[in-house]
Amino acid sequence: MEIGVSIERALEISSSFPLNYEIETISIIDAHNRILSTPLTSNVDDPLFDNSAMDGWAVIESDCLSLPIKLSIIGTSQAGETPDFIVTKGTASRIMTGAPIPSGADSIVLIEDSEIIDNKVLINGPARPNYIRKRGENLTKNEICLNSGVLLKPSQLAIASMMGYSQISVISPPKIAIIGTGDELVEPGENLKPGQIYESNTKALFGLIKEMGCTPVTYPFVSDDLNKLREILNIASEECDAIITSGGVSMGERDIVRKLMENEGEIKYWKIKIKPGGPPIFGLWNNTPFFGLPGNPVSSQIVFMTIVVPWISNSCGYDNFDGPKLFEKVRVKLLSNAKGTNNKVTYRRINIFFDDDILVASVPNNQGSGNLRGMVDCNGLTILPIGVDGKKDDFIDAIWIR
Amino acid sequence: MEIGVSIERALEISSSFPLNYEIETISIIDAHNRILSTPLTSNVDDPLFDNSAMDGWAVIESDCLSLPIKLSIIGTSQAGETPDFIVTKGTASRIMTGAPIPSGADSIVLIEDSEIIDNKVLINGPARPNYIRKRGENLTKNEICLNSGVLLKPSQLAIASMMGYSQISVISPPKIAIIGTGDELVEPGENLKPGQIYESNTKALFGLIKEMGCTPVTYPFVSDDLNKLREILNIASEECDAIITSGGVSMGERDIVRKLMENEGEIKYWKIKIKPGGPPIFGLWNNTPFFGLPGNPVSSQIVFMTIVVPWISNSCGYDNFDGPKLFEKVRVKLLSNAKGTNNKVTYRRINIFFDDDILVASVPNNQGSGNLRGMVDCNGLTILPIGVDGKKDDFIDAIWIR
Repeated sequence: MEIGVSIERALEISSSFPLNYEIETISIIDAHNRILSTPLTSNVDDPLFDNSAMDGWAVIESDCLSLPIKLSIIGTSQAGETPDFIVTKGTASRIMTGAPIPSGADSIVLIEDSEIIDNKVLINGPARPNYIRKRGENLTKNEICLNSGVLLKPSQLAIASMMGYSQISVISPPKIAIIGTGDELVEPGENLKPGQIYESNTKALFGLIKEMGCTPVTYPFVSDDLNKLREILNIASEECDAIITSGGVSMGERDIVRKLMENEGEIKYWKIKIKPGGPPIFGLWNNTPFFGLPGNPVSSQIVFMTIVVPWISNSCGYDNFDGPKLFEKVRVKLLSNAKGTNNKVTYRRINIFFDDDILVASVPNNQGSGNLRGMVDCNGLTILPIGVDGKKDDFIDAIWIR
Repeated sequence: MEIGVSIERALEISSSFPLNYEIETISIIDAHNRILSTPLTSNVDDPLFDNSAMDGWAVIESDCLSLPIKLSIIGTSQAGETPDFIVTKGTASRIMTGAPIPSGADSIVLIEDSEIIDNKVLINGPARPNYIRKRGENLTKNEICLNSGVLLKPSQLAIASMMGYSQISVISPPKIAIIGTGDELVEPGENLKPGQIYESNTKALFGLIKEMGCTPVTYPFVSDDLNKLREILNIASEECDAIITSGGVSMGERDIVRKLMENEGEIKYWKIKIKPGGPPIFGLWNNTPFFGLPGNPVSSQIVFMTIVVPWISNSCGYDNFDGPKLFEKVRVKLLSNAKGTNNKVTYRRINIFFDDDILVASVPNNQGSGNLRGMVDCNGLTILPIGVDGKKDDFIDAIWIR
């Protein structure tokens, strides 16, 4: 067991115990926000054949050098049909957007640059070769267009279809157990006794796990009861691919998660050099990867983003290692000082917005790790390196939460 | 019917025919990525009582001015319990993170700044008043913390729980019909005949509609058949809250969507001043709001973002009018020229990334509205105002697609 590790070392240790996942084949229509598990090579050229970018006339450019000119109408090229005629000198073919270019034609005249007179077409505007979309100019057959690990957003769904895929292989969401602990916590909706507060961490973790492409599985809440915790950890390690607990990892006498992991689990590291962050645990329970997150609501989310997000992304080969759905790493200019910490990376809550052309960040006052509202009212976090204070007007790394 | 309207006018027209929605009450655990429909006022103060931010000792600050000092141990304050003792001069109480501050105490000494000797505690470090979290310092009872229209991300789920809500009111996803049209299109997985290509637009629309918090409902694909289209529009207008068609809105002879809407529907506007964008239609079919999107795959997505996203956001009172899940409006510095258009707002595909402290954008060459791959390989769009060219090193408005 290592104690008080850097973020880098924490990721290194946890990467030896990756999250297991399986793959499954699903219909493209069910694949929104899923993660592609196999690279997709195109089954087709795109365009599949030379076609018109506009409604108009397929012509021979050299016929249209001095305008206006009358051309004989040789036929119509419709989308979905192959023209059975040839455009020869002095003729033109009506053509629709997306329809194949008939043999002989080398450019397009826009419909608004033409007029039909006496069964002929009078061309008033230029013939444009660049309004022909050339076969394969966007994508060629057998080219890889989407890599494995890609998050399937609307554009990716469309191009997978365009390449001919009705079914694709995606990552089956790994199951991650959520187990809340803490004597003072009760479920929202119940009556509070003196000293009690409503439980909230597991609700955030539920959403965070979903945003990472995994399936959260909730287990009964555990109060101060080692036996109950052991029992639930045993069930969760059978049923899930990883376990996340909330609370109980500190030095206090009733910190049952730390106690149980110390005595009966395998702790790989305890405490990381981040603030806020408290003393998270990573280890194994019955060979199942285990994260013991701190109970402070702000720390809980920040530790998830800092050590769980890259662990999942890395394990599953996500294209964007930093959490494809959760946040964007950005540079911001500080509008006021943001104090760092001697031996820790500091994640202060900030508000990121544009001031003219620059992303800036304001730093609210109440930065307590119990201040959940600080997470809700802000949209970002500083990433102040160890021992570095952020000063007004400094540009710093930051996380822009989506 | 207005023809060739500005984006602003298009939104004005469509805002008279808003998307209908209903609200429903669901469990907080099911509310991830849903839209809150009623403001939430807190049922509790946060913190609910003065409590300790750290594990340590609750003491009287004036006892600890000259260190080290030995204090008698008067009791232990645990999370979830109310202390039944008073900290008096010369005494200290063991206290856990989150546990209530006993009467009499006014500061916290960290556990690592102490040592137990002969049943007393030797205090080696400072007593810190600011490690007491004061009742209500983050949030007070009856204060509104989450407004209606807010997208419920992990932090919002957590604070709703913390405020005491196990059930909340959210927008029921409106149903939006998707109807694809186009002679040349076949479903991916089938065999292509000459002149045919795989259909892709409806797959992107499926994802886009979901990201806007609505439920996409797909209908059979319609080829060149007015009667079939009429029949499906009639069914869709019964079953859904809005209809989106893909393709068939141009001036071509087989543009059946435009033809049918012209003759039997109510077109409110046709064509908007954007590029790419083609000639989208907005109107009503059997009093159901209707968007006829263009068939070019790039135009299809851009028109959705430009006129459908704000229409849904505005109709349903979304907090972030610009599309809470789809994109972020940003400022970027152009790395090369990006040509605008005389009478249209121009959305060129760009790649947005950080160069040192500034968001910059590269402008790829192949900007064809049929080049779906251009949407996949890029992560943004210029918003060049009417008649404005973007020049290298200019800062311009842009859309950063998530």
